[in-house]
Amino acid sequence: MTKQALFEQILLKKSYLCVGLDTDIKKIPPHLLQAKDPVFEFNRQIIDATAPYAVAYKPNIAFYEAMGVKGWESLQKTMKYIPKECFTIADAKRGDIGNTSELYARTFFDKNSSGFDFDAVTVAPYMGRDSVQPFLAFENKWVILLALTSNVGSNDFQHLKIEVEGEPKKLYQQVLTKSQEWGSSESLMYVVGATQADKLAEIREIVPDHFLLVPGVGAQGGSLEEVSRYGMNKKCGLLVNSSRAIIYASSGEDFAERAEEEAKKVQQEMEKYLSAIV
Amino acid sequence: MTKQALFEQILLKKSYLCVGLDTDIKKIPPHLLQAKDPVFEFNRQIIDATAPYAVAYKPNIAFYEAMGVKGWESLQKTMKYIPKECFTIADAKRGDIGNTSELYARTFFDKNSSGFDFDAVTVAPYMGRDSVQPFLAFENKWVILLALTSNVGSNDFQHLKIEVEGEPKKLYQQVLTKSQEWGSSESLMYVVGATQADKLAEIREIVPDHFLLVPGVGAQGGSLEEVSRYGMNKKCGLLVNSSRAIIYASSGEDFAERAEEEAKKVQQEMEKYLSAIV
Repeated sequence: MTKQALFEQILLKKSYLCVGLDTDIKKIPPHLLQAKDPVFEFNRQIIDATAPYAVAYKPNIAFYEAMGVKGWESLQKTMKYIPKECFTIADAKRGDIGNTSELYARTFFDKNSSGFDFDAVTVAPYMGRDSVQPFLAFENKWVILLALTSNVGSNDFQHLKIEVEGEPKKLYQQVLTKSQEWGSSESLMYVVGATQADKLAEIREIVPDHFLLVPGVGAQGGSLEEVSRYGMNKKCGLLVNSSRAIIYASSGEDFAERAEEEAKKVQQEMEKYLSAIV
Repeated sequence: MTKQALFEQILLKKSYLCVGLDTDIKKIPPHLLQAKDPVFEFNRQIIDATAPYAVAYKPNIAFYEAMGVKGWESLQKTMKYIPKECFTIADAKRGDIGNTSELYARTFFDKNSSGFDFDAVTVAPYMGRDSVQPFLAFENKWVILLALTSNVGSNDFQHLKIEVEGEPKKLYQQVLTKSQEWGSSESLMYVVGATQADKLAEIREIVPDHFLLVPGVGAQGGSLEEVSRYGMNKKCGLLVNSSRAIIYASSGEDFAERAEEEAKKVQQEMEKYLSAIV
């Protein structure tokens, strides 16, 4: 999907909500366990309930992998079920030397190889340029590079003070700066955690045009209002992810209705913030 | 597997060779393509040929993932086939926020969840402590953390000059130092690329007792002699990986014999270097 097509979807749905499909067989409502493929059945109902309010879906690959072959089958069915106009993100945090990243790119982007046809994949930056470029070689596909994550451990390395050509910076700032040599805002987005919303204004100075994927609103405590205030640009430039707060809004038979209510609530708040740019 | 058990295997086989199973359906000998599962058939013959000379096997997960569900099935069969006394490494470069890393740990360590029972998994450090700890919670399982990788892109971030408590360092040095707060040399190893062998002596000062997984000998140009001279400690402390130079030594029907010859050659060289410590 192109950047423009994504922006048009955002305007159409008045939403920049991404629903995270962190589907854990141990957490889905018990009545679904009788279904032939409980994980897919859960996702199917969540997608039906939230598609009017979401522009993107983000399966968290760990949750499918952990179930072995069966999990990959559930993921395949889920991907086929997501409406074509939605942006799809494989939240996989991959990244390896060039010839290996090429294979990871095939995994998520090349339908003929793996059966998957995601629009984007999340990538870890530690191994540098040649670990990222093979993903960028696919047309109209996206790398979403980890910059500043929402977890406590982000303090261990991402905030380290570094020096580049005599200038003091933090590591995550250099990830943002350096990676712009590898791809443009038409193929590269960044993960910036909502729990670090105060950093968004400063990040926007480094990457004014790029889309940011913002996890951490909801269960992890980030504020949608702050994220939108500091992170939005003229083409929206935000995909805000919510996983647990939507998909596990209820653990009963009403889980899909409750997910719909939660997604709608977020969408309505987003509509308000979007009015600043349209 | 415990550190002591791994050391005993090294003494027994007089080898610290790890064979990388980067099995690409596009590169295996054509006569195997008629087999029911060509990737497994290739791995089976490579394992038979190299097991006397190798203490570890390292499937590169990207190569299996890229084939979708079929690839995971080949990987399952391969894992069941590897002799029990060999150390097994899922080269997966995973790492995510705590609740997600927990799922990745289940994927590779929890037989009841995914069917896999690897001894170790490679993990990327960028997201910090809580992205690594869930893997360390499994008894007798190992995290192999990326420190200094063998690719060109390692220059982008790993060598950045940082400052920690007023002291100048490089990022990879801080990864080595900081991560020692999370696990001991009984559960934590590090990836150090053979193409950076000159750094090994200095790395040994930071992590004297830890095992190092060293890729990059062979196709990537690293020298086994230098790696062994600067990297070996009293308990060997090295697993040197070779993938392409062994498994693709021939692309003909003699691929397994040629792989055996290459593995044996490496083992004999290793036997020489091991004589320094036993």
